[in-house]
Amino acid sequence: MAVNLFSPEPASLHPVAGVELGSARAQIRKLNRRDLLVIRLAEGANVAGVFTRNRFCAAPVHVCRDHLQGSGAVRALLINTGCANAGTGQPGLADALASCDALAAQLGIDSRQVLPFSTGVILERLPMPRLIAGLPQAIADLALDHWADAAEAIMTTDTIPKAASRRATLAGAEVTVTGIAKGAGMIRPNMATMLGFVATDAAVDQQLLQRWVREAADASFNRITVDGDTSTNDSFVLVASGAGKLKISADTDPGAAELKLMIQEVAVTLAQAIVRDGEGATKFIEVRVEGAASADEASAVAYAIAHSPLVKTAFFASDPNLGRILCAIGYAGIDDLDPDKIDLYLGDVHVATAGGRHPTYREEDGQRVMQQSEIQVRVMLGRGARATTVWTCDFSHDYVSINADYRS
Amino acid sequence: MAVNLFSPEPASLHPVAGVELGSARAQIRKLNRRDLLVIRLAEGANVAGVFTRNRFCAAPVHVCRDHLQGSGAVRALLINTGCANAGTGQPGLADALASCDALAAQLGIDSRQVLPFSTGVILERLPMPRLIAGLPQAIADLALDHWADAAEAIMTTDTIPKAASRRATLAGAEVTVTGIAKGAGMIRPNMATMLGFVATDAAVDQQLLQRWVREAADASFNRITVDGDTSTNDSFVLVASGAGKLKISADTDPGAAELKLMIQEVAVTLAQAIVRDGEGATKFIEVRVEGAASADEASAVAYAIAHSPLVKTAFFASDPNLGRILCAIGYAGIDDLDPDKIDLYLGDVHVATAGGRHPTYREEDGQRVMQQSEIQVRVMLGRGARATTVWTCDFSHDYVSINADYRS
Repeated sequence: MAVNLFSPEPASLHPVAGVELGSARAQIRKLNRRDLLVIRLAEGANVAGVFTRNRFCAAPVHVCRDHLQGSGAVRALLINTGCANAGTGQPGLADALASCDALAAQLGIDSRQVLPFSTGVILERLPMPRLIAGLPQAIADLALDHWADAAEAIMTTDTIPKAASRRATLAGAEVTVTGIAKGAGMIRPNMATMLGFVATDAAVDQQLLQRWVREAADASFNRITVDGDTSTNDSFVLVASGAGKLKISADTDPGAAELKLMIQEVAVTLAQAIVRDGEGATKFIEVRVEGAASADEASAVAYAIAHSPLVKTAFFASDPNLGRILCAIGYAGIDDLDPDKIDLYLGDVHVATAGGRHPTYREEDGQRVMQQSEIQVRVMLGRGARATTVWTCDFSHDYVSINADYRS
Repeated sequence: MAVNLFSPEPASLHPVAGVELGSARAQIRKLNRRDLLVIRLAEGANVAGVFTRNRFCAAPVHVCRDHLQGSGAVRALLINTGCANAGTGQPGLADALASCDALAAQLGIDSRQVLPFSTGVILERLPMPRLIAGLPQAIADLALDHWADAAEAIMTTDTIPKAASRRATLAGAEVTVTGIAKGAGMIRPNMATMLGFVATDAAVDQQLLQRWVREAADASFNRITVDGDTSTNDSFVLVASGAGKLKISADTDPGAAELKLMIQEVAVTLAQAIVRDGEGATKFIEVRVEGAASADEASAVAYAIAHSPLVKTAFFASDPNLGRILCAIGYAGIDDLDPDKIDLYLGDVHVATAGGRHPTYREEDGQRVMQQSEIQVRVMLGRGARATTVWTCDFSHDYVSINADYRS
């Protein structure tokens, strides 16, 4: 069902020097599927992350934040699917720490050098014996070229693994950026992916990396929504292994701007992949809001449209019931909005102007655009020069089926 | 599909002296169904209303606001379904005014004494010739005991007409309150019903009536949500015909407190009826939030839960996937929320405490409550003494079907 999204060719995912990946079938929740992933980082790698703002955030998110505030010498990431280890209180925190201890002992590193991540059902404890029993298998599997397997290992309701990769020569040095991510429900801004990992072999200064991970998140994962639910576990981590030749210590260094752009491209591709594989998605929708007086109001209008179940079901039906979009604009919270100044386009079709239908608008033109699998909604507010873009998908029967049946 | 909601017995709807209702089959959008309603008020009636805060509000809402600011001597309400007359710009405004003109001419009143209301599809013009042609039939049908027909005449995707009535003796005078409303999608706070009309035969001072209509809306229609979409047309109107014996000019008058309560009871019954008949609803859910530091944060948490598609699909599936409720509490926007202080009950079952499962919680207890058709979710935030209650329904396949097919 995913919209114009295909499994990545393993050969298209460039290995990142200093970053090895190994997965296991640990039976965390289901039999015979990869559900445990270890990512081992070379000594000297820098790691930065941004995490969910959900106040009920999961135990592993607490541990990640704590471990990242330490020496910074992160050497391994441990990811499980099937159980989110969220809403598990102090016992859940102990489980997350124990999983770090177990991996650290087997890799010969300190427990605080491990970052743990979990995704899956909330309010259930991790099956610790099975998780720990799966670690040797994952470690034995560690290899530079296992990105495709890794993308598969972190899936929950995703139907297609998500990975992206770029390679370029910057400032005379070949540099690689490769990343993986997972969706596919409980997706909305403030760290919208449940999990995203992007790595480069460049060396990047830790403070700069922390700024880049936030900027990359704001340009990608923080601009998508599937269902408006901000997850308890959202995490996006950026790794700079330093095993390659490019060294970046400031934004002004040769190659820095290009590398930052490569990282953002990979993050945007992964974020859009999450929307394309949104639960039940049949359409990929870009909502572009222009002419806003502030970034906040551009965002408010874009998300009002992107979250409206009525708009999303109309897209599912390919029904140009476009009044629903005007309605969403109207309740986006801009008190002094003047409907007469608003223009609405659906793809290349001018739908509304001056508070009503555009004189040239014909239902069949709207219909034509609605039937496409990739649709742009463009709103001009006529209030200023700020703009934003968010990506979402439609709302189908399958969304209900997937979420009504997820645990069973 | 409506949840424990049944068509009102016509005999249970007490006539309100001074308020006549007449409907017609005007073929506004469909053949052979009541879709046009005229409510004629006795001279001297006071009328107050509250309207949508959607900035893209419909033409008739503009006209209502304008006409209510005039002399106040409203003598007739004109309601059509099938077309919302929203997103129709200046031509739509002219249509709304022309419909007032036409009714006023036939009733021998001034055009500004008419309040127009429309509900249905947005971005389409009113079929004025058919609407005007239907007026004589509606006027000929005017009668005191046509509340049940009137409730039917304002339905769109509603499956059951919504009406409620109370009669009591207050301060020695018999007084009646009867009302009708319609849903059933595009429902969320800030005037949550698309249309609600409540009338009493008491005489109530105009300023007092305006305060009462706002308080009644806040206690009823502003506390429900079906899909989080605030409509362009939401209107709630309270009529005090003055044709009865009870006269109220201040809150402290004998019978005033009781009458206000009767009005609120009718409004709450109608509001809950809208949720019970929410598009695709199979469950009626009360979300009660206690222990909040402010009314705003109680409301934010209640609506985060009530709007979450993941929570609503879990209710549809009778799946006690209650971590989704904790997740919604976590992203409700309370920055200093302490998850360890939160308690969550599902009906009488203590689900979560201290950031995790309650020790006594068993899945089968949660399952038992989830299978009921009426479910209470109760959250204690442990932050203060403020509380609120909102009502919502679950999210089913039929919601998608209804909204994907509404126009076809």
